[in-house]
This record gives sequence, structure tokens and C-alpha cells, in this order.
Amino acid sequence: MTTDTGAELQRDHAGRLRHLLTLEGLSRDELTHLLDLAQFYVRVPGEVPARDQGLWGRTVANLFFEPSTRTRVSFELAAKRLGADVVNLDMQSSSRVKGETVLDTIYTLQAMLVDVFVMRDAEPGLPAYVAAHVAPHVSVVNAGEAHVSHPTQGLLDVLTIRQRKGDLGNLSVAIVGDLSHSRVARSTGRALLTLGVGDLRLVSPPSLMLEPHALAGASRHHSLAEGIKGADVVMTLRIQHERMSAEDKLDAAAFYREWGLSAENLKHARPDAIVMHPGPMNRGVEITSDVADGPHSVIRQQVTNGVAVRMAVLSTIVRNVQERNVEAGRRAV
Amino acid sequence: MTTDTGAELQRDHAGRLRHLLTLEGLSRDELTHLLDLAQFYVRVPGEVPARDQGLWGRTVANLFFEPSTRTRVSFELAAKRLGADVVNLDMQSSSRVKGETVLDTIYTLQAMLVDVFVMRDAEPGLPAYVAAHVAPHVSVVNAGEAHVSHPTQGLLDVLTIRQRKGDLGNLSVAIVGDLSHSRVARSTGRALLTLGVGDLRLVSPPSLMLEPHALAGASRHHSLAEGIKGADVVMTLRIQHERMSAEDKLDAAAFYREWGLSAENLKHARPDAIVMHPGPMNRGVEITSDVADGPHSVIRQQVTNGVAVRMAVLSTIVRNVQERNVEAGRRAV
Amino acid sequence: MTTDTGAELQRDHAGRLRHLLTLEGLSRDELTHLLDLAQFYVRVPGEVPARDQGLWGRTVANLFFEPSTRTRVSFELAAKRLGADVVNLDMQSSSRVKGETVLDTIYTLQAMLVDVFVMRDAEPGLPAYVAAHVAPHVSVVNAGEAHVSHPTQGLLDVLTIRQRKGDLGNLSVAIVGDLSHSRVARSTGRALLTLGVGDLRLVSPPSLMLEPHALAGASRHHSLAEGIKGADVVMTLRIQHERMSAEDKLDAAAFYREWGLSAENLKHARPDAIVMHPGPMNRGVEITSDVADGPHSVIRQQVTNGVAVRMAVLSTIVRNVQERNVEAGRRAV
Repeated sequence: MTTDTGAELQRDHAGRLRHLLTLEGLSRDELTHLLDLAQFYVRVPGEVPARDQGLWGRTVANLFFEPSTRTRVSFELAAKRLGADVVNLDMQSSSRVKGETVLDTIYTLQAMLVDVFVMRDAEPGLPAYVAAHVAPHVSVVNAGEAHVSHPTQGLLDVLTIRQRKGDLGNLSVAIVGDLSHSRVARSTGRALLTLGVGDLRLVSPPSLMLEPHALAGASRHHSLAEGIKGADVVMTLRIQHERMSAEDKLDAAAFYREWGLSAENLKHARPDAIVMHPGPMNRGVEITSDVADGPHSVIRQQVTNGVAVRMAVLSTIVRNVQERNVEAGRRAV
Repeated sequence: MTTDTGAELQRDHAGRLRHLLTLEGLSRDELTHLLDLAQFYVRVPGEVPARDQGLWGRTVANLFFEPSTRTRVSFELAAKRLGADVVNLDMQSSSRVKGETVLDTIYTLQAMLVDVFVMRDAEPGLPAYVAAHVAPHVSVVNAGEAHVSHPTQGLLDVLTIRQRKGDLGNLSVAIVGDLSHSRVARSTGRALLTLGVGDLRLVSPPSLMLEPHALAGASRHHSLAEGIKGADVVMTLRIQHERMSAEDKLDAAAFYREWGLSAENLKHARPDAIVMHPGPMNRGVEITSDVADGPHSVIRQQVTNGVAVRMAVLSTIVRNVQERNVEAGRRAV
Repeated sequence: MTTDTGAELQRDHAGRLRHLLTLEGLSRDELTHLLDLAQFYVRVPGEVPARDQGLWGRTVANLFFEPSTRTRVSFELAAKRLGADVVNLDMQSSSRVKGETVLDTIYTLQAMLVDVFVMRDAEPGLPAYVAAHVAPHVSVVNAGEAHVSHPTQGLLDVLTIRQRKGDLGNLSVAIVGDLSHSRVARSTGRALLTLGVGDLRLVSPPSLMLEPHALAGASRHHSLAEGIKGADVVMTLRIQHERMSAEDKLDAAAFYREWGLSAENLKHARPDAIVMHPGPMNRGVEITSDVADGPHSVIRQQVTNGVAVRMAVLSTIVRNVQERNVEAGRRAV
């Protein structure tokens, strides 16, 4: 399983995080430290973005095998605001024209002194595979891996909840919709459980529920009204049409009638509930525009936190690798 | 009408320019100030480009829904030479893969602390629509909007004329060719009229003339020889095949015979006339190569001025927004 | 012939290198100087990349008419690590949408104060053609021209050999495989001959051999075993399927049986022979994975040297142009 492998793979011999492949295996303290650092980088629209030179002289390569304008730009801005050089490689069009293997591409870029690979892929396994093969001073950050893992999304979600609702121990959080195809549900759910969320609810039709033992500790619900009842946080998920096989294809209108989050059925949650969505939204399918753009929505705040979280992740892993390099140099003297 | 809406929309409550959507409504003093600042940034090929840090820490996003290598690079270099971070989004390929609305894309980028959106679109209305929705500290620059408006092109054209010919009050300027599909004719014509050009002539076959009341004050001509007779400036326009409907499609050879600007028919203009073209040129259709590359041509100078004008526009709107922010902060204390 | 034209074209009136179009005509001293400077810029993976500000304020435009992620990124990183602004133009998709000529695109970018054009094309002649037309302060670097020339690859290859094997005068170097379609064979072979390599061997089936008088001084061999016998360096070439006409198409399996470099037939070379490949590799066609990834391989070192060589080339031509500009200024006083 990718995530289990990833949990070990992402640490160096001294246990420091050198990759970010998954949130599986990260301790409460580690998550809290990343969130605190991200909070330090948060600036709201209208403020001058936070900048430092923690990645000065470093090179970050964005390798996206699956299209994503928003996540690519979020990582690109995070890296540039830390002083890094950034190169973008659109792996859909430019990569395999000449039939080179992915690993040859990686080794080639590593030989050009790329320090961090930010990778997105529609298939599971690539980030861990690459992390297992790069040199000890090179890092891999998972920017979205099939339905399996999306660790920076998990971090930005819990950062947003913490900012709005404070201590997680007292909160009811409902994750709603297409859970089975969602890397966000898995990563955000894992972060919430590790951080000791009071009550985590997985809410979906049976056909779109997570596999049986996933996110142990969460309760499971097959009715929207019951699942979000009294919740502090309602997180709707994107219907992942693009990850469904032909026979799984949903009837969007039917899904909306039963599972679309509207102002009407949001009344089942607490009056001060916040509504989250990882974007991009299918308006009128999993969420209505009056909810998406309404007073409960914190969807834009999630995006703002995304840049801050990516700055925190990049600066943490680069600093950890630097520490390792210094120790290795000391041993070599 | 987009341009009228734009004229109001592009100012903040204190009347400062915070977007550049259109040249409609800009005063003679405002245009002159932008041109003077642009002149300050002009460097000719062989000189070191002008640089300053007026956009340091700012983020500029190029959103091109219509392909344009030259204009995208011109804005990208203008922003980089002012110290900005620049992200390029090819909205043709990458944007709507997941069905997100344009406004969701804009709000997402705004949440990542993008300060300026540079937008080009083949349809009218998008720049004003976006300008009406972004936060008060965010700016939109129209980099070409259907047949409607191309304000930075208008500015670079009048800057070029001013450099070569001085006071506009004594000049005859002829705009020639496919006026009906041309955003350049509309923006450059507007700038010339506001700045008090002596004599503005619109020269085209009847089927390609501007709508009846456009650019009031200009004379209209349906013969090339008569239209450019004694002109100081002859500005030819690109035949916009891509904006013509099927039944409007021109016979390029027939157009060339009657309307192509050649060394021969350029003799109708003044002996020291300058020839302009917004590019990219259809050589052998609206202009011959001996004119395009000949002694009257100032076409490359227009391109050089384009970068300077975009630097002036970006630094002006960012400074205006900064002023507004400071005032808002003062009121809040 | 492109290369002959290029050899003269690439120098200014005082004989300084202002473009790099070809390695034809470069003296032993000139090559050695470029290699020494490149060596100064070499950093191995794990070290902080070399940086200086030799291109600060300069603009480098990457114009790739043929796809190449690795070479484009190598030039992009070289330019950025020297402090340049870099713009990427994908000329396959974005350039000719509006039917502009290549020279109009070049003149447009030159007018925006681009200093260096890095160009790749599948057809011969474009770099020299552009070099013949740009202004005296503008440079062209050939980043791969059809089957004709790839000068920075030639430089990085001889740099790699020099690092591993020292004095070229005592070495046997075998270039193996599809020579006829290879710009690498031509450029690397030329550099080796100019630098006085002891013994240069061209090894290929008759149908893929170089034209009769190319690389005079090299011996020719039509058997792999005989051609690499006792060689210090075995350089395999990529099978250029994409440059073969339909009737030339190779049977990859048949080629592999007779010409694929495997651990078995590598035994014909010296026990301490190094194996090189310009990449991207067709594993299992011209080279096996056990050789490509084995102890003789220096393929990743070639890639690392590529960035250093491109930094040396860019900083040399920009400094030469600067010298010329200063002299021209002095004469003008």
C-alpha cells in the first residue's frame, strides 16, 4: 500500500521528514509544528505576501502528470516566495514524447541539481517510487496522488478548521460526498484523527463510501441530514467524474437531489458551522452557489492557507535535508 | 456596452485608476502622465533594460484565453523588470479541464495573493466582469478584448507617434484596413482624439468600417489613396481573419490589390510619413515587406514602446492601489 | 552548408564569439577556455549550485521548435543561475497561430530587449539564418539543429571525458550507433578532433554512417566488437526514429541484437572504459539498462556538466558582446 510505504520512506535515518508523501505516520507534534509554521506564513488578501529566503539557491521542479492549474500555481508561488528557482514541466505533453522513462527524467533533473520534486499523478504509487530512488539530498512532495493521498490539502484543511474553530477536540467534522475517489478525504481525515478531532463522520451513499477499515475511529452515515446533524464543520468533496469508471458514472442531477449541499439542508448542521470544499467545485452538483459563496463558506480561506502550508512544507523538508547534509559532512571529516 | 462600463469600473472611489480596461474616459492629463512615465522606462535595443522594484513582492498572473506569444511576453518582461513574481496560465488548455468557472479561477488566484490579472479574451466583456468582482486591492489589465478594446496598444501607438512627430495637434493620422474587427483602431483612435490629434481619418472598405458613431470627430474614407493623402502617420491594421464569420471571409489577394500598403501607394502620404502596424503582420495582405521593413516603418519601435507602456501601467495601478490601501488603513485606525 | 556559414557568422568583426552556432572553426584554445570556465561552474548533486550575476538584467528567450524538456530546462537553469530573466516560448503550439514569420517573431522579441535566443529546430539552417539577421548586440545559441549541430552537447561530452580520463591525446574514443541522423556525433566528434584526441572511431552499420568526408581523421568501423576494441570511451547514440524517413525505419529488435551496447559486448572495450549517452535513452535498443545504470556509465555526469557548459557559453558570449558594445561606444565618442 502506497501510504504505508510512504510513511517510512518519507523519513531519513534520523527520523526527520525529508519527503512529504502522506500524512500517515506523522505525529500530533509534527502536524502541529507544520501548522504553526504555516500560520506564520499566512497573509490574507490585501496584505503583502510573506517572503523569506529559506529556499534561496534551491531549485524546485513541478512535475504534473495530471492537469492542475490551481495546485501548480500554489506550489509555484510558495517556492518563489521562499526564493527558489522554479521550473514547470507539463508531463502530459512534453515528457514522454521521446519515450524516456519517468525515472530517467527524474535522474536527469536531479543531475541538473533540482532539490525538490513536486509531483502530481492520476495513478497511485509514483511519489513513493520516485522518493525511493532519488539521492539522499533530494526531496519529493506529493501534490496529489490518484485517490490515495494529498497531504498538503489535508494540512490546509486542518489549518483552516483550527483558525475558525480552535481546539479540534471539541469539534464534529463531517466529510460528505464522493469519499471513495477522494484523496482529500483520506488525507484530511487522517490529519483530523491524529490531531484528536472530537467526532469525525464520513457521509456518503454506500457506493461512494471509503473501504471498510479506512480512517478507523470515524463514524459512517448514509444520509446527508443525519450525517451533518449538529456538525461544526461540513466538508463537501468534489465529484471525481474523471476517476470513475464508465459503469460508475454518476447521474449528476440525481446526486444533487440527495447529496448536494444547499442552504436548506445545511440547516441540519450547527448555526455557526463552516463549509469547506477542496475545489474546483462542481456548482449545482455537490454544492449550491448560495452555500459556496455564502456566509458559512471558508473555501477561499482554504486556498490562502494552501500557499502558506506549502511554504511550511518546503522550508521544513529543505531545512531537514540541510541538517542531514551537515551531519554527513561532519561524519566525513 | 463594455467600454462605457469599463470607464467607470476602472476607477476607485477617489477616481484613481485601479484597473486598465479601456482608454474611454481617461483625460488628456492622465494619458499624458502614463506616456511620460512610459518614456522614462524606454530603452532601445542594445541598452540595458530599465528596471525598478515598484512591483517587488507583487504577483502578476497572465490569463490568456486567446493565444498571443508577443503580448504575453511583453507583459511578462514588463512585470519581471519591475521585480514582480509572474505566473502564466494558458487558459485555453489548462483552465476548464475540470469545469471550474472563470470567476472561481479568479477568486482562487486572488486567495493566493495575486495582485494583478492581465487578461486577454476573444469574447467581449470578461475584463470588466472580472474587475467588477475582485477585491478592492486587486487590479485587472485588459491585454486585448475581442474587437472592443486594447488599451496598452493604444498607449504604445500614441507614444510612438509622439516620439517621432511631436505635438499631435498638427498631425494627420490615417488608420487603414480592417477597422470593424479591430480593437487597436478603437483604442488608438480614442487616445488620439483625447490627446487632440489634428486630423484623424478612418480608411477602409465600407464593409470593414467602424459602426456609425464610433470615434466621433474622425473623418471616414473609402479609398486608400484619398484616405492617406498628405498623412503624417499611416497605421495599417492586421486583417483579423480569425474574427470574421464564414460569410465575411476576405479574399486576401483582392484585399491586397485595393488596400495593401505598398511603397507605390505610400507616396500619397507625406514624404516623411511614418508607417505603423500592431503586429503580427500578414505580409503581402495588408502591407508589403518593402514598406514593413523600409525607412518609413516604426513597427519595431512600437514593440519596444510596448514593454515601457506596460511597465508604466503596472506601476501606476499598483501605486494607486497602494495609496488606497494606506488611506483605508488610516480610516480604520 | 550550415556549419561552414555558422563558423564565420558566429564571430564579431574582432573575431570574438558572439553566437554559438557550431563547434566548427573553434580553436583548441577557445574550446579549452570554454571547458575551463564550465569546470569552474560544475557542482555535483548535493552541493549548492554555482551562481553568479553575469547575466543580471539580461533576458534569455528559449525558442524550441522541437520538443525537448531536458535541454530547455538545462538552459533555463543555466540562465537563471546567472541572474537572467528567462522567457519560454513553445514554438510548436504558440508561434505560428497567427501566421507570423519566424524572423518577425525574432525582431519582435529583440525589440523587447531580448539579449540571447536559445533555439532548437528539427530543420537545418534556422540558427545561422537568425544569427545573420539579429542586431549586433544580440546572440543566438544553437540548442540542437536537425542532424547538423548541437554544440553545447559537444562541449559537455568532452568536458566529461576530460574529467574522467584527463589528456585526450592518449585516448581512444568510439562513437557508436545511428551516426547519420546525429547532431551529437558531428559536434562531439568535431570537438574531439580539434582537441587532438588520440584515436576517434565512428562505429555503425553502413546505412547509418556519416557522409564520406565528415570528421576527417576518424576511422570507420562496421562491427561493434571491432569498433570499440580497447576503447577508453564508448559513446552510444540515441536511435533517432523521429528523423528517419518511412523507408529508413529501423527494426529496433534487430538493431539491438547487432548494435545494442550490453555488459557482454562492452567487454571488448578497456576494463576502465566509460560509457556515455546524450539522452534520452531508448533502453533495450541502443543500450541495455545494466550498462546505462552500471559502473562504467557517466551519463548523469554528462547532464550535470550540461548546465555548467551552458553557463560558460552564456556568460562568454554575453561578456564578448559587452566588450564589443564598450568598444563601439568608445569609437562613437
